[in-house]
Formats: sequence, structure tokens, C-alpha cells
Amino acid sequence: MKVDGKDLRPIWLDENLETVKIIDQRKLPHEFVIVDLKTTDDTILAIKEMYVRGAPLIGVTAAYGVFLAALTFLNQPDGEEKMIAACNRLRAARPTAVNLLWAVDQVMKSALARDDIADRIETARREALSIEEFEVENCKNIGLHGCELIEAISKKKSGETVNVLTHCNAGWLACVEYGTATAPIYTAFDKGINVHVWVDETRPLNQGSRLTAWELGKHGIAHTVITDNAGGHVMQHGKVDMVIVGTDRATYTGDVANKIGTYLKALAAKDNNIPFYVALPSSTFDWNISDGLKDIPIETRDPDEVRYVQGLHDGELKSVLVPPENSGAMNFAFDVTPARLVTGFITERGVCKATEKGVKQLFPEKR
Amino acid sequence: MKVDGKDLRPIWLDENLETVKIIDQRKLPHEFVIVDLKTTDDTILAIKEMYVRGAPLIGVTAAYGVFLAALTFLNQPDGEEKMIAACNRLRAARPTAVNLLWAVDQVMKSALARDDIADRIETARREALSIEEFEVENCKNIGLHGCELIEAISKKKSGETVNVLTHCNAGWLACVEYGTATAPIYTAFDKGINVHVWVDETRPLNQGSRLTAWELGKHGIAHTVITDNAGGHVMQHGKVDMVIVGTDRATYTGDVANKIGTYLKALAAKDNNIPFYVALPSSTFDWNISDGLKDIPIETRDPDEVRYVQGLHDGELKSVLVPPENSGAMNFAFDVTPARLVTGFITERGVCKATEKGVKQLFPEKR
Repeated sequence: MKVDGKDLRPIWLDENLETVKIIDQRKLPHEFVIVDLKTTDDTILAIKEMYVRGAPLIGVTAAYGVFLAALTFLNQPDGEEKMIAACNRLRAARPTAVNLLWAVDQVMKSALARDDIADRIETARREALSIEEFEVENCKNIGLHGCELIEAISKKKSGETVNVLTHCNAGWLACVEYGTATAPIYTAFDKGINVHVWVDETRPLNQGSRLTAWELGKHGIAHTVITDNAGGHVMQHGKVDMVIVGTDRATYTGDVANKIGTYLKALAAKDNNIPFYVALPSSTFDWNISDGLKDIPIETRDPDEVRYVQGLHDGELKSVLVPPENSGAMNFAFDVTPARLVTGFITERGVCKATEKGVKQLFPEKR
Repeated sequence: MKVDGKDLRPIWLDENLETVKIIDQRKLPHEFVIVDLKTTDDTILAIKEMYVRGAPLIGVTAAYGVFLAALTFLNQPDGEEKMIAACNRLRAARPTAVNLLWAVDQVMKSALARDDIADRIETARREALSIEEFEVENCKNIGLHGCELIEAISKKKSGETVNVLTHCNAGWLACVEYGTATAPIYTAFDKGINVHVWVDETRPLNQGSRLTAWELGKHGIAHTVITDNAGGHVMQHGKVDMVIVGTDRATYTGDVANKIGTYLKALAAKDNNIPFYVALPSSTFDWNISDGLKDIPIETRDPDEVRYVQGLHDGELKSVLVPPENSGAMNFAFDVTPARLVTGFITERGVCKATEKGVKQLFPEKR
């Protein structure tokens, strides 16, 4: 996407074909820092510490992580074992995002199917690149399908502004281009539809106010940051036409794990008859589990992510402690929104009901 | 209440009988600052800028504001008019809290019923003091009645820890002693019941993580700070036995205006069959309106309260900017939880259903 007129992705393979470059998203919007990933452990750190985040981008980063494992280890003695060990560490970097597992398996399988070492490395590289482009294509199509929903509301409102609420960042920073939840918004805006976005700040790490607001601002899209607490109030007062969020893992039965707080917004949308959509590429479906609330592991992160808030002070990034020094905190990173609260899925193949039947109609090969 | 072994209230009349002293709650928990209020305009500033906050404490502060108006103006030419003008400014300091209006009217009426100037001033002083003690007594009784609910859960759980979730600060800092939502918790703890509190941090001003956590910690009560987003998740997973919140204004029909985000927690409690109680003294009822969603004015505050977060950095209070400099924000201070989501009211006279019938059974004089 364009940032100050320049094409930019949150991840890319350097021209040397040996280094992966990422934007350090922990420092946005106040500092713009590019970081080099040279080893699988670099990618693990980047995923764990959330230099990169968002289901599709975690997948793409992990795919490059497998390539880096191949590059580092395959020429060593016991190279394949070492590569597999590194990839297993990579799989454990974050427990909730299913794209991570999917991408690691995909690249490993393709690479290890080759016999020759050079061929294995080259296959891993090509497979990672192809996952990157696959996600770009998916997001583009999510945008096209989701845009129809926004357009329908716009027509019903005779062209008046369509107000979309989103939680966290499921924008191009979480993907590669377009985003998932934001793809329909970018597509609608580029088509000239009047759209305004309520941006949940999304505590604890404020991916909404830091990243979504930054993205939308750079693209020129009208948006307003609100606290996570405010979503119910704006819905009660007719200020929201639809909700679109992303997801870190969705069951094929329609349950949705997403950034903590999503469930609360889904409840409020239901209570106010507002459509609640989840935008996702098929790589985010978990085809193996049917009960999201029971079976999706929910990551618990460092309590200090709740206790400290980072922002700009006197031109420098600083972290401030909010609660008393001796008050403990807990940091649940995700929650699960049950299928009954989801109006529909926006996928690369179209929009469907958040039910097993709806999902498998779009993805019959998974039946 | 005790703070480091010393008895403390968030407001008191100085021994000189001319100055009102308050704790500047904007700086807690990291700085403990006492501020002098010498004029009605001082009290207006303290209420507007939230040196003091919380429905009962706003009422008590306003009561003292009327006393300061009497003290300042009644000996001047056109003193009564000047006093009334000051009190009208005071009434407008914050639109949502009904205790403010109630307390101003109560003190003015009593004072102006007297003929003699000295008598008027003395009556205002005594009336303000009596409102302060009235709220103390109310909160004490709320604690006794609410404690029975906690005790019942404790028995059902065979003495295992009772987990209470609360939003914002409806503690003694928001009242004078005990608090409203926290009164049952303090009472239960003092009786030896095992209790643990999930403290919503309560964006934007973090009254939960700053004030409730501080209060509970000073009293030795087990508590854990969570993001406002996390309430649904902990309820889904059986980690919450009951929710108790305060309110800034409740209709006699059971609708409840409280800190923004309360509605979302009420929805989640309903969805998970968890009792959701609102603790309030009768001074917080609005006996004139029946439709809270339509008729309770919701204050919109400075967007910078959302954009900046204050906390401790290198031993000093600092504010950090979270979103991009040029992203706007909106700051809705309250929302309204409809009566259908409220399990019951905990009042100074007992627990009742959040319905007109339930409320008027406890307060028959309002029929």
C-alpha cells in the first residue's frame, strides 16, 4: 500500500535473497523502523514480541522463517533435523494464530519433498514468496466481496456516510496488502463510497489507535479513535452501520478467535441489530476443530503489556506505568466469539454464513 | 477508610471551616496530593477536571460548593443573586451525574429558607456536612445488603474464592467511605469471606487500574487488573461469579448510566448467566425520567483524554500520545445499560429488582 506516496509492504525479501525485512510495528505510528531477520530465531522473536502481528502476516513471516531455517541448516551436518527443530520452535511462537502452523507446514512439506539441498532451499524460498502473494490475492478478493456489503448499505442510505466499526488492526499491516477487515473499506473508499471508520483503540497494545488509525490516515480515510468501552454506546445510538473484524483462527463451524474484546462488540452488535462480519482468508480456518470456545488455545501474555502504555512524550517513545506498582494484572490476548453472533464470513471466495454448511459451500474441497 | 494505617476520606471540611480539602484523584496512585477548594469556582473546576469524580462524591463536593457560594457571596451586595448564579454554574459542571443536581438543590433550599445571613451560611455548612454523613451511612448499608449476596455465593462455592468483576471506580474514592460497588466487597472481606476482584482498567481515564486497584491494595484485598476488553473472556470461562458496578444516574425504571463500557459488561454477564448488580444510594436515582437511553444526557469529554495516557515514567507522572498526532478521537464518558440487563439494585434500604415496581417497593415515598 502507499505510505507517503511510496509502495510499502510490512514484509519483503531483500534483494540479496538472504535477509527478510519487516517494519517493527511495536513502534508505529511514532517511529518507522525497518528490521532485518536473518535467522529462524529472528523470525520467532519478531512473531513473539509482535514486531509483526496479524494472522496472515504471522503466516507469511513464519513461511520466511522456514526458508531461513533451510538456508541456515541444510548445508550443515544433520541439517534436516536442525531445520525441523527450528521449525518446531517457530510453530510454538504464538499459540492462537492458525496461519502460523499452516504456513510452516506448507513450506516445510514443499521443501523437504525435494532431494537436492539447493533445490530444497530454493523451493522454500519460492513457497514463502508464493504464500506472500497468495495472501495478497486473498485480501484483494476479500476487499471486492466485502465492498458489495458496504455498497449495499451506502445505497440504502442514499449515499450518506457508511460507518464501519473495527477492532484491533486487521489492515494491510496485519496482512501484506489491503488487509482483511480493512480490505472492503479500502475498496469501497477507492470506489468513491463515503465511508467512516470507528477505530477501537484495542488495549492492551493499542493496535487500533496505533496501527489502524495510521493506515487509514495514510490512505486518507475518515476515521475516529474511540476507547474499546465506547463501541456499545455508538451502536445504541445508530452511529454504526456494520462491524468488520479479522480473526486469528476460525473454526469451520463459525466460531472466531480474535483480539480480546471482539466478543463484547459482537454482543453489542447483536443487541442492536447491526451486522457483524468477520473477514478472513481461508488460511485462517482451522479445519480440525468445531468448538472454538473449548478448543482454540488462548494466549496469555506478559501482564506488563497491560500495566504499561507506550506512546510519544517530548518526541520520544516512552512507557508509563498506570496501576499501582504492586497491583498484578492478567493479559488475555484473544477471546472467542461464538458463531451465533457472527452475521457472516467475508472470504476470498465470497461471503457466507458462519456455519459449517455456509463455509463448506464456499470451500467444498474441505467437505 | 484506612490508607497506610491512617483514616482518610476523599473530601473533608478543614478545621478553619472555610476551606474544603480534597485528594486530587487525577494523580493517584502515583502521587498523593491534597488540594484546597476555597470558592465555588474551585469546586466547579475540581468536578469538571475530575480532581473528584464518582456520583456520591460529586454530590458531596457540590454540596460544599453551595456552602462556599454562601460563604463568599451572601455578605456582598446582591449576595443571594450571586450565590444562585454560582450554584447554577455548579449545576452545569457535569451533565450526567444526578447527585450533583440533587445536592445543590438540597443545600440551597435549606440555606435560603433561613432569613439571617449568618444562619444561611451556617445552615449551608451543616447541610453539606449532613449530606456527607448521609452518603457514608448509605454506603455502609449498601455494604451490608450487598455482602449478603456475596456470602450466598461463597456458601454455594463452599468457601472457595468469590470472584467479583467491577468497572471503573465506585469505591470510597468515589463516595466518602466504603464506596457503592466496593462496599459489599469491603464488608465481605472484613467478615473473612474469600473474595477476589477483577478490576477493569476503565479507559480512557483508567479509574479502575489507578483508583480501584489502589483502594483494594491498600485494604489488602486480592485483585487483578484486566483490560476492559477482557471481561467477556473471563466470564465465558467461569472466572466471574458476579458483577457489581456503580452508577452516575439510574432511572426509577431500572436503566443505568455508568462509565462507558458498563453496557458491554452487562451484555456479557447476561450471555453467561452471571448476576449483574448495580450498587447505588437513593440520591443517584432520577425520579423524573423513565427512559434512560433516550433521556439521560451523556457527557462527551476532551478527545485528548483518549489520545493521551498518563502514568509513571522515571519516577514522574508523564502523558504519552498513543495514536498518530493527526488522528481524531471521540470521548463518550458514559453509556446506558437498559434495565433488562440488570439483575438488581443494591441500595441503602436493601436489594431490589431493577424495575419501577422493585424500586418503589423500597422507596414507597416516591410513588
